[in-house]
Amino acid sequence: MNATSSHPIRTLAIVGVGLIGGSLGLALKRAGAVGRVIGVGRSPANLDTARSRGAIDEIQPDLRRAVSDADVIVLATPVNTIAALFGALAPALTDDKIITDVGSVKAGVCAAASAALGARISRFVPGHPIAGKEKSGIAAAAADLFENHKVILTPSDATDPQSCLTIKKMWQTIGAEVKSMTVSEHDRVLSITSHLPHVLSYVMMDFLATSPEREHCYQMAAGGFYDFTRTASSDPEMWRDISIMNKRHLLEHIAKFKRQLNNVAAMIDADDETAIEDLYASARRARALVTEKRKLES
Amino acid sequence: MNATSSHPIRTLAIVGVGLIGGSLGLALKRAGAVGRVIGVGRSPANLDTARSRGAIDEIQPDLRRAVSDADVIVLATPVNTIAALFGALAPALTDDKIITDVGSVKAGVCAAASAALGARISRFVPGHPIAGKEKSGIAAAAADLFENHKVILTPSDATDPQSCLTIKKMWQTIGAEVKSMTVSEHDRVLSITSHLPHVLSYVMMDFLATSPEREHCYQMAAGGFYDFTRTASSDPEMWRDISIMNKRHLLEHIAKFKRQLNNVAAMIDADDETAIEDLYASARRARALVTEKRKLES
Repeated sequence: MNATSSHPIRTLAIVGVGLIGGSLGLALKRAGAVGRVIGVGRSPANLDTARSRGAIDEIQPDLRRAVSDADVIVLATPVNTIAALFGALAPALTDDKIITDVGSVKAGVCAAASAALGARISRFVPGHPIAGKEKSGIAAAAADLFENHKVILTPSDATDPQSCLTIKKMWQTIGAEVKSMTVSEHDRVLSITSHLPHVLSYVMMDFLATSPEREHCYQMAAGGFYDFTRTASSDPEMWRDISIMNKRHLLEHIAKFKRQLNNVAAMIDADDETAIEDLYASARRARALVTEKRKLES
Repeated sequence: MNATSSHPIRTLAIVGVGLIGGSLGLALKRAGAVGRVIGVGRSPANLDTARSRGAIDEIQPDLRRAVSDADVIVLATPVNTIAALFGALAPALTDDKIITDVGSVKAGVCAAASAALGARISRFVPGHPIAGKEKSGIAAAAADLFENHKVILTPSDATDPQSCLTIKKMWQTIGAEVKSMTVSEHDRVLSITSHLPHVLSYVMMDFLATSPEREHCYQMAAGGFYDFTRTASSDPEMWRDISIMNKRHLLEHIAKFKRQLNNVAAMIDADDETAIEDLYASARRARALVTEKRKLES
């Protein structure tokens, strides 16, 4: 970082300028928190759109040259390709650069970073903004995507505290609330609050679509069903990768969910009114806590 | 029905003036589609509120007297108590009265009606408005609750076509779209589009609340999770009753859902990228059909 720059981050490279990368560029530029933004990606058309939308200032087709020019490098490609980037960019790294990422699963990314970066792992700050939309790509990017959203950082003992602080401030500048967790906490918690609901939602939608009653079902799908399956409109490729990358926790939680579903089915089968009502009431109280939290934060 | 009346329905009795019954009263009165509305219920305070909100014109504590005075009787109590009402009101029935209900599960209600009403089963038009809110009770009632919502009627061969038409027009007058199904179709389809998602949503919320990671989970529950679990805010007593009353279809569909969930878990365990992506993509296409249908209707 150049302390004489008028911006907190002089030059930022965003590798993968889609919904998240593009929104980050738009937000940081709007906040005046970055001098210059370099966009790196495979699709020239996509990068052109990102530049014309003002998410990036310039296009750099060569990853290593982008890394050479940047103070902070954000890896915002699909999560299963982030791991491969560390090896590709390692030769261009110097001790004064900071790398961060936005991957939804942290264990694989962090293991790949450790393997590829050696001692410079201290300059890698793993991150995950809990923000998204059903729509993906630069067209859906928005400068306010991260406002009042959480960003989780999963630094390790090896992470340089100053680098961590720089990334924390970067997200705070654009309205996000930054939390720290361990890699394992992150991957377990997100498997419960995000990955499992996505899988259930996809399965529910597939259930309807493959039912003999599907035509009637399509007609009767009301507001409750619509909200329940909103996440089934998410990008299939992205969620395929998340499902596989976090499969250890996800499969454990699918198995646990099935056990809890079995319990409820047994209560229903036994006409156990008290047990069913207790469970539904306890679930409703838990949901009220989530609602309350959202109100406090918005 | 009195053909000389200036209203399509001269006197309507609503038994159970909660969210659905109260909203029906408000809507029909606003539309000028009813002369007089009699409210019947167990809670005097609730009936007073219904009257002061204009959902009913008068309170009648005695069910049979209400039935004697009414041309159309709407049973809008919780679904597990509707069945018991037929026996109670049967002595006050005459051949010119029409009965309908709003129960979410039709098999039990229709069987009870057959048993209690004898030949007058022809005047019972089973109904189910697909409208609701997480909030229940007269306080949440609204005159526009049924606008652009479906109402399913499940008449049998024994149902009088003219009675069916009267009930159909009643709902159409207040903006609802009326569909006919058999009892069995209704209970199967609703078990897929409504009852199963409610159970899954309650179980998901309970899963989070009983997780060792629950504190972190509450913090990380973002928009996707919030929408996914919206139905877990529904009334536990009502959903306990629906779960039990529709248990034959619901348990069959829970079992089928578990099989489909197992299939996806096996694909994830095997890193079967193609199969996972195909399933997620197919689910997303199905969800797009639901979205499209909603746009066309709103």
